[in-house]
Amino acid sequence: MTAAVVLLSGGLDSATTLAIARHAGHACHALSVQYGQRHVAELVAAQAVARQLGAVEHRVVSIDLAQFGGSALTDPAIPVPLGPTVGIPQTYVPARNSVLLALALAWAEVLDAEAIYIGVNAVDYSGYPDCRPEFIAAFQRLADVATRRAIEGRPVRIEAPLIALRKAEIIRTGVRLGVDYALTVSCYQADAQGRACGRCDACRFRRQGFIDAGVPDPTRYVQTY
Amino acid sequence: MTAAVVLLSGGLDSATTLAIARHAGHACHALSVQYGQRHVAELVAAQAVARQLGAVEHRVVSIDLAQFGGSALTDPAIPVPLGPTVGIPQTYVPARNSVLLALALAWAEVLDAEAIYIGVNAVDYSGYPDCRPEFIAAFQRLADVATRRAIEGRPVRIEAPLIALRKAEIIRTGVRLGVDYALTVSCYQADAQGRACGRCDACRFRRQGFIDAGVPDPTRYVQTY
Repeated sequence: MTAAVVLLSGGLDSATTLAIARHAGHACHALSVQYGQRHVAELVAAQAVARQLGAVEHRVVSIDLAQFGGSALTDPAIPVPLGPTVGIPQTYVPARNSVLLALALAWAEVLDAEAIYIGVNAVDYSGYPDCRPEFIAAFQRLADVATRRAIEGRPVRIEAPLIALRKAEIIRTGVRLGVDYALTVSCYQADAQGRACGRCDACRFRRQGFIDAGVPDPTRYVQTY
Repeated sequence: MTAAVVLLSGGLDSATTLAIARHAGHACHALSVQYGQRHVAELVAAQAVARQLGAVEHRVVSIDLAQFGGSALTDPAIPVPLGPTVGIPQTYVPARNSVLLALALAWAEVLDAEAIYIGVNAVDYSGYPDCRPEFIAAFQRLADVATRRAIEGRPVRIEAPLIALRKAEIIRTGVRLGVDYALTVSCYQADAQGRACGRCDACRFRRQGFIDAGVPDPTRYVQTY
């Protein structure tokens, strides 16, 4: 069994990604990053998801991206948009996925892991620049030169298995692989009990995904839909 | 005056890089990262250097790369090599420059900075994979797609002005631009007063650089040379 680092936010996509990495036969080292996001409930969820899906370990790294500001997810003064927006929404956290992947790369090198899994998706998504296939390809080219493994001719692989899937396909895949979506939290502003607002981008894509997949939605909302 | 983020460790190379960025006319936002390195004296030095060279601000971001281990700079159980080594030395911190540049990219995006400066050098150096020109080029390609600025067609530039310079040339450049090298600390295992061991890779390249440049070496060593 070869090792893989799996970025795990505690949301629906990263939980499914962990299940896929496990199904591919990896010993999965789950990595969550406390970067100053509002929705700390996600990190509590990540721990439960890592356990349910058989990660060999789960680490939480703290880094204060909130001190840079510039995002509704890290700055309480910027409201989370509650409807469709034009362009890149305020929930975009500047360079977040570059930071997350760089941290995963550091851990992967120490573990001698052969792959890094990230649950980015460029179909039912918010238009973030660092969720696109060209971003993942560029990070792969970085990994191809950045590390000791790269110099040895065996660079770590960046795997983004959800990138071209519809939300409904992600959910059907996860159900097939045994993901308990009741444990996951996707909402950008979940309350302390992990209950979702039902109105932010993340909630809307998720709710529609369960409807389209024909799978009962186990999400706990602050109000009934 | 356009803004630039300058990665500033407090060592000789990054101090010179800050002076170059200032000379290029940038409003310089200096960024130091407390990543668990042994030589915290560098961070004290960074603050003094930022002030001396007119940075508009200096931020220190903490991130615990030591929890991943795998380097003599972050793991006290791994000794710092005190002579020439074969291959990539134990002082290499896995994926460190990927993490540093990703953090700089995050801040640059919030500041709407047009450039990131990093003092990597691939001539008088320790053979780290992430100090090479191909690494910087790959990170530029990442920056070309990773951010909101990239989508808007004006990606941040990654500047590595020292990459092809000999250590003596770096020192002569810095002297010309007013760098006070007495403030800088390069040693991998400087003591709490910032005094250098004189024997690690960083010390040896630095000492030889001052000799080759014909510039008096202001470094405070724990013993006299």
